[in-house]
Amino acid sequence: MTEVLIINTGGTFNKVYNPINGLLEIDTQGDALRSITSKWHCEIEIIDIIGKDSLDLSNHDRLELLATISQFNFHHIIIVHGTDTMDITAEYLNEGDLKKCIILTGAMVPYSIDPVEATANLCSAYGYMNAMHKEGVYISMNGLVDSYDKIKKDRSKGKFTL
Amino acid sequence: MTEVLIINTGGTFNKVYNPINGLLEIDTQGDALRSITSKWHCEIEIIDIIGKDSLDLSNHDRLELLATISQFNFHHIIIVHGTDTMDITAEYLNEGDLKKCIILTGAMVPYSIDPVEATANLCSAYGYMNAMHKEGVYISMNGLVDSYDKIKKDRSKGKFTL
Amino acid sequence: MTEVLIINTGGTFNKVYNPINGLLEIDTQGDALRSITSKWHCEIEIIDIIGKDSLDLSNHDRLELLATISQFNFHHIIIVHGTDTMDITAEYLNEGDLKKCIILTGAMVPYSIDPVEATANLCSAYGYMNAMHKEGVYISMNGLVDSYDKIKKDRSKGKFTL
Amino acid sequence: MTEVLIINTGGTFNKVYNPINGLLEIDTQGDALRSITSKWHCEIEIIDIIGKDSLDLSNHDRLELLATISQFNFHHIIIVHGTDTMDITAEYLNEGDLKKCIILTGAMVPYSIDPVEATANLCSAYGYMNAMHKEGVYISMNGLVDSYDKIKKDRSKGKFTL
Repeated sequence: MTEVLIINTGGTFNKVYNPINGLLEIDTQGDALRSITSKWHCEIEIIDIIGKDSLDLSNHDRLELLATISQFNFHHIIIVHGTDTMDITAEYLNEGDLKKCIILTGAMVPYSIDPVEATANLCSAYGYMNAMHKEGVYISMNGLVDSYDKIKKDRSKGKFTL
Repeated sequence: MTEVLIINTGGTFNKVYNPINGLLEIDTQGDALRSITSKWHCEIEIIDIIGKDSLDLSNHDRLELLATISQFNFHHIIIVHGTDTMDITAEYLNEGDLKKCIILTGAMVPYSIDPVEATANLCSAYGYMNAMHKEGVYISMNGLVDSYDKIKKDRSKGKFTL
Repeated sequence: MTEVLIINTGGTFNKVYNPINGLLEIDTQGDALRSITSKWHCEIEIIDIIGKDSLDLSNHDRLELLATISQFNFHHIIIVHGTDTMDITAEYLNEGDLKKCIILTGAMVPYSIDPVEATANLCSAYGYMNAMHKEGVYISMNGLVDSYDKIKKDRSKGKFTL
Repeated sequence: MTEVLIINTGGTFNKVYNPINGLLEIDTQGDALRSITSKWHCEIEIIDIIGKDSLDLSNHDRLELLATISQFNFHHIIIVHGTDTMDITAEYLNEGDLKKCIILTGAMVPYSIDPVEATANLCSAYGYMNAMHKEGVYISMNGLVDSYDKIKKDRSKGKFTL
């Protein structure tokens, strides 16, 4: 089996409802990821960094992500990321020329509201990674799993397309 | 993207509660699969055959599965299958020497009770298939995705192991 | 059995996630109420009016609610309402001296996120109404079901108390 | 507020899936009841006894239920019970002439599969009890809440009717 590191950066995937203020807020503890992988009988390492909506990601945040990827000894890395700037981060990481197999994923609806879509996106990424050993940057969203430059978000329709 | 055929043969994955008799029964319409893939923006073909617990599969049923695989023009095929004899069917298909990329998956708990485990198993299979183009027979269960002969069900513990 | 009218005015109870803008919005069709009562073998009438957060309710909206209550021939009325000004509307209706048995309920977390809390609040109201025939205005929230002037929302803690 | 004792005797309400043997088994710890009432800001006492399908209840079990009711100092008691012999137990308790307000409830589908139906039945009972102070034995199922002798289970249709 492939050893996989999951870097959780926040995004809709991780949002939970706060009954005090009525807002959906990012769970920076990453409970959604732990819940999905709790039934898995393989070794997974999960780390939580940044904890932001992807529209709020700064250059400093992307630098932190790059540094985190470099610092860990894993060749296979899944990044849970907000959907709005997933393509920008993917391109940024591609330019970093990291010699790793990296796949970005996320969710259109929080795991706490629709566990199926978030689980499907994450696990399509996870399965892909177990068969893909070539270096590169990929995206996994809503049944689409391919090189990052082939998948785009259509914001007006709220969905990803090839 | 890879064109994938999903053959749904029944098993725990598809069980739903019947309030009249108090039993879990296999939904032979495959609503669980349609529900998971309803958010996907890719082409998936799903067919429902057999509709049995894997302990009840006969030689005739496995022959029907083999015939179905041969009859469709897809190179990539996911089979949703009961967990108890998944390994037997995998070996049977491997001996069939089908020159296709086939991956078996299922669930320890029905989708209607725990949608996350069933979705994770199916989507790990789906992701794997999108990166794996070599012929062979594989299994995807609980974070384990590999050649069928490397993954075994430990029935006393109710889990799959390498 | 008591004949009950449910007037759905909006509030957190009815919020659903909109993946296009990432916001929780009030479902003015009242799908949550229809989903809960779909398993009931009794006659229930549901009408949807106003469709607002309770912080956005105007005098005009409360007048519309009062008119709706008067217009229907039911003695027993459940009002699904946002929690923030539930007490203000209850007092307003009490002053209206309607000679009816009215109970307000709602949810701290949307039904689409936590179906159990919303269902519990509504059904505690429904059960109460089936045994209570005295005129008056009542509130049902989080296990508390009593005359409206005995139950208060503590906004800083996000909960109702006696 | 009314002080309520909930006596949990088992039944479909409490069934959970056991992945080792593939069966639905009664959770004798009563996690479903604790989960529903965890959001309530009132005093509830819950005790778990018997832990059986109602078709398996013996005379000895019903005697234990009667003894438990007598032993506790509560006037208001909800009994979570299997649906198949709910009417028999209700009649048995009615003949016991307990001078208490007792309401039986349960679920057609386990809470672990459909949390909404089980929650609705329990909370309709709970609300009813908060307004009903007369002695008697009642049943709460699927929107029907009334004296026990007015509500019957139609087993062929799997539903309760007046």
